[in-house]
Amino acid sequence: MKFSPLLDALIESLRILPGVGPKSAQRMAFMLLEHSNGAKKLAKNILAAVDGIQSCSQCRNYTQQPVCDICQSEIRKYAGQLCVVASPLDVLSIEQTGHYQGRYFVLKGLLSPIDGIGPDELGLDLLAKQLQQSSVRELILATSPSVEGEATAYYVSEMAKAASIEVTRLAQGLPSSGELSAIDSRTLGHAFSGRKQL
Amino acid sequence: MKFSPLLDALIESLRILPGVGPKSAQRMAFMLLEHSNGAKKLAKNILAAVDGIQSCSQCRNYTQQPVCDICQSEIRKYAGQLCVVASPLDVLSIEQTGHYQGRYFVLKGLLSPIDGIGPDELGLDLLAKQLQQSSVRELILATSPSVEGEATAYYVSEMAKAASIEVTRLAQGLPSSGELSAIDSRTLGHAFSGRKQL
Repeated sequence: MKFSPLLDALIESLRILPGVGPKSAQRMAFMLLEHSNGAKKLAKNILAAVDGIQSCSQCRNYTQQPVCDICQSEIRKYAGQLCVVASPLDVLSIEQTGHYQGRYFVLKGLLSPIDGIGPDELGLDLLAKQLQQSSVRELILATSPSVEGEATAYYVSEMAKAASIEVTRLAQGLPSSGELSAIDSRTLGHAFSGRKQL
Repeated sequence: MKFSPLLDALIESLRILPGVGPKSAQRMAFMLLEHSNGAKKLAKNILAAVDGIQSCSQCRNYTQQPVCDICQSEIRKYAGQLCVVASPLDVLSIEQTGHYQGRYFVLKGLLSPIDGIGPDELGLDLLAKQLQQSSVRELILATSPSVEGEATAYYVSEMAKAASIEVTRLAQGLPSSGELSAIDSRTLGHAFSGRKQL
């Protein structure tokens, strides 16, 4: 059975959303048709966001201003710390911990030559300029401990060392919930090698 | 941490989609910002679908014409069968079986007085008119075997009986995959009571 062309087009374009397969896209499309006011509002908000939100000229995070609130903050600048993360969602996660008061640099991706993602795509030229010009004393690497995350962290750490800036990496070890027996062996290995004296 | 107002509005309006919680909505919003062309296309297709797709005046299924293809088909009309389903997705599932060549009536919901869904919301007045006027010989109830599905099936079956039309209900029994030991007892009970002579 074929849907009408407009419905087919809607289902197809919903597939852009992360984690949405053909079946979910169908359900979403019918849901949108049933709730036409909410659907119109969603469409309006997508267009407004795409038009009105840009990348911060300093940290590349999404913002409605040329420079985002965090980069504008004098307190954050004074901290002298720059935390390098892969995505804007990581900024949110770190802010929610309340443990960090410095600035960020958002790569919006990780080095992955096989996918055509190199230093230019991650804005590393912009990062290099900031490392030379600004008052950064510590660069904190907060990319995930995946292969791409480690490769990117290594690349960025070399840039920071060339600019004589201290480089740190987030600790790896036991997560604060879960049974020891349920932890994977790589994580447990990191927890052993990184053990601290009490 | 607060997002910018446009991003907040986008995240909020994505929550209308089925199965999308706060975290998924955030991920979707950032994904849309990253892929602005796909995002604009999605917005355009939502608006086009909401404006251009309407309910078929006969069966209430979604269509771009006043009367949908299935209702226009003479072959389907000739079959003299009308299958009552809860949602347009059910039409799709039944069409995919290839076992049915009659027409449909799409309730777009099930009777649920607690949610304010009565006969009027399901277009049962339209169904009643069709049962009196048209050449329907068999009405097939294909609502799900839930409490609401059974209540709706009962209500519709009374309407059909009042119009002296034969009423059937989809068989309940074992699904064609899965171990017998994994089947719930209600389904197994239906399979026993509905057993057939070989």
